[in-house]
Amino acid sequence: MDRRSFIKSSLFGAALTAGVGSTMSSAQPAAGAKNPAVLRLSSQEWLIPGRSLKEKVEKLIKWGGAGIELGPGLNPKDVLAAIEGTPIKVSAICAADGPYIVDDKDQQRKAVENAKRILDRAGEVGSTGVIMVPAFNGAGGNKQLKNPEARKLLIDLLREMGEHAVKAKCRMLLEPLNRGEAWYLRQLADAASICRDVNSPGIGMMGDFYHMHVEETSDMGAFISAGQYLHHVHLASRSRARTMPHQDNSDYRDGFRGLKYIGYQDFMSLECGCRGDRDVETPKTFAYLKQQWEEATI
Amino acid sequence: MDRRSFIKSSLFGAALTAGVGSTMSSAQPAAGAKNPAVLRLSSQEWLIPGRSLKEKVEKLIKWGGAGIELGPGLNPKDVLAAIEGTPIKVSAICAADGPYIVDDKDQQRKAVENAKRILDRAGEVGSTGVIMVPAFNGAGGNKQLKNPEARKLLIDLLREMGEHAVKAKCRMLLEPLNRGEAWYLRQLADAASICRDVNSPGIGMMGDFYHMHVEETSDMGAFISAGQYLHHVHLASRSRARTMPHQDNSDYRDGFRGLKYIGYQDFMSLECGCRGDRDVETPKTFAYLKQQWEEATI
Repeated sequence: MDRRSFIKSSLFGAALTAGVGSTMSSAQPAAGAKNPAVLRLSSQEWLIPGRSLKEKVEKLIKWGGAGIELGPGLNPKDVLAAIEGTPIKVSAICAADGPYIVDDKDQQRKAVENAKRILDRAGEVGSTGVIMVPAFNGAGGNKQLKNPEARKLLIDLLREMGEHAVKAKCRMLLEPLNRGEAWYLRQLADAASICRDVNSPGIGMMGDFYHMHVEETSDMGAFISAGQYLHHVHLASRSRARTMPHQDNSDYRDGFRGLKYIGYQDFMSLECGCRGDRDVETPKTFAYLKQQWEEATI
Repeated sequence: MDRRSFIKSSLFGAALTAGVGSTMSSAQPAAGAKNPAVLRLSSQEWLIPGRSLKEKVEKLIKWGGAGIELGPGLNPKDVLAAIEGTPIKVSAICAADGPYIVDDKDQQRKAVENAKRILDRAGEVGSTGVIMVPAFNGAGGNKQLKNPEARKLLIDLLREMGEHAVKAKCRMLLEPLNRGEAWYLRQLADAASICRDVNSPGIGMMGDFYHMHVEETSDMGAFISAGQYLHHVHLASRSRARTMPHQDNSDYRDGFRGLKYIGYQDFMSLECGCRGDRDVETPKTFAYLKQQWEEATI
């Protein structure tokens, strides 16, 4: 996503909010999206076999991919050189740092300042956003915050990060995880309500089909609730194996219906293990996902 | 709801779960419902002017209502006498007792045993369910539980209440409230995931359009997430006034789309203030809601 499309996307989000019929429901997303959703497949960079980023980008193009997800230590010059003149964009930066919502103020500052540095690099390469987890299990130790105070603190920190993100032409993306991995933020509707309360174009969220299988009762409902705040999706199979989507015939169609309903425009990126050779399995899984996308009718 | 339709409704819920395409997604509700949703309007009994329950029931019939919501102190014989031979059913019992999720075991027992007594009366009159709030703000005092432990405790207590509810041919209905009223359970998706984890036909949930306006980013997404677990809805205007739905032109159509999508079969009941005479305003608000229901197209 380049800077122009970032601004367009922010304006589109604002238009969605403004277009609601009721004067009472200014925070409600509109019913259905104006622009049809697009399937833009991506993979985390370290899951693509290859000796260089350029070689990985070339494989992605061959497989029909549209995006590449990078780690937080990226070198913007190298990344731009590898994707220049290709159809591949940086889908997201996966930076599960933090924890953010802890009692320890020094740790809060450390996490926020680190996020700002990653946002700068992410903005330079036109990434959709920088993924963050507010707190994994264990974070905060026996001083773990209660939910209402954790939420208040998170919103304060996100306001600061959101301001920085806007300047960097990027976004922070909240990632809900399942209860086995994080004590806070399990559901997409909860992440969306945080985004709404922060109210910054520099703050968005994502969904991960693997975690959603544990925590959501409806993938479609979850994505509709995520609505205009959703700017990234992680793909993995939905069994405990967390392998390639096609390798255990996981069903994504209910979620894809939700993505189609909201007119999703951003990327879906592989974050999963693989049984066998990724050079063989990745194109198979892309084909499987395209098939599921076609079958997802509202 | 009579006993036969309760059983039918439970079987319908089971069929929804079983009908999912993916072997991985056994807990996902199916895409769309088989039976079209119905609009069955109800009012809390104390909001209908009248000298007797019989007189209130007659007014409801005149206004096109289908259900009446009662308080926890109901006398089953009197209620059955008032609705016998009429099209009016008991939509729900509004019993916001508890708190349930507190550190104090005596209070836990007190709340659960009280709920069981109400379930018995509710079952006798064929109520859809008994409404419960796990904990209001302030409940638990400075020993307030953290969310993960509160959830675990709630699920244990709901399993016990669910078993009793099934015997009583009734249900407990979790009610999410906005953050200004309760420190736990703000969103419908969260309540639905609790119902799923409890996995009892004696445990369901509800949504309240007033609270949803504060806590949900999408009414439609929230109701789709609630899915098969949703068995009651509260109606009020969506401004702070919490008045009659038509009195501030609140918009229910996005939520009604969600209810239509899931094939909602239960009641929507007024729980709100009123500007002016309820005898004049209630039929106006029923007409307004019917109009909104017609306008809600998926």
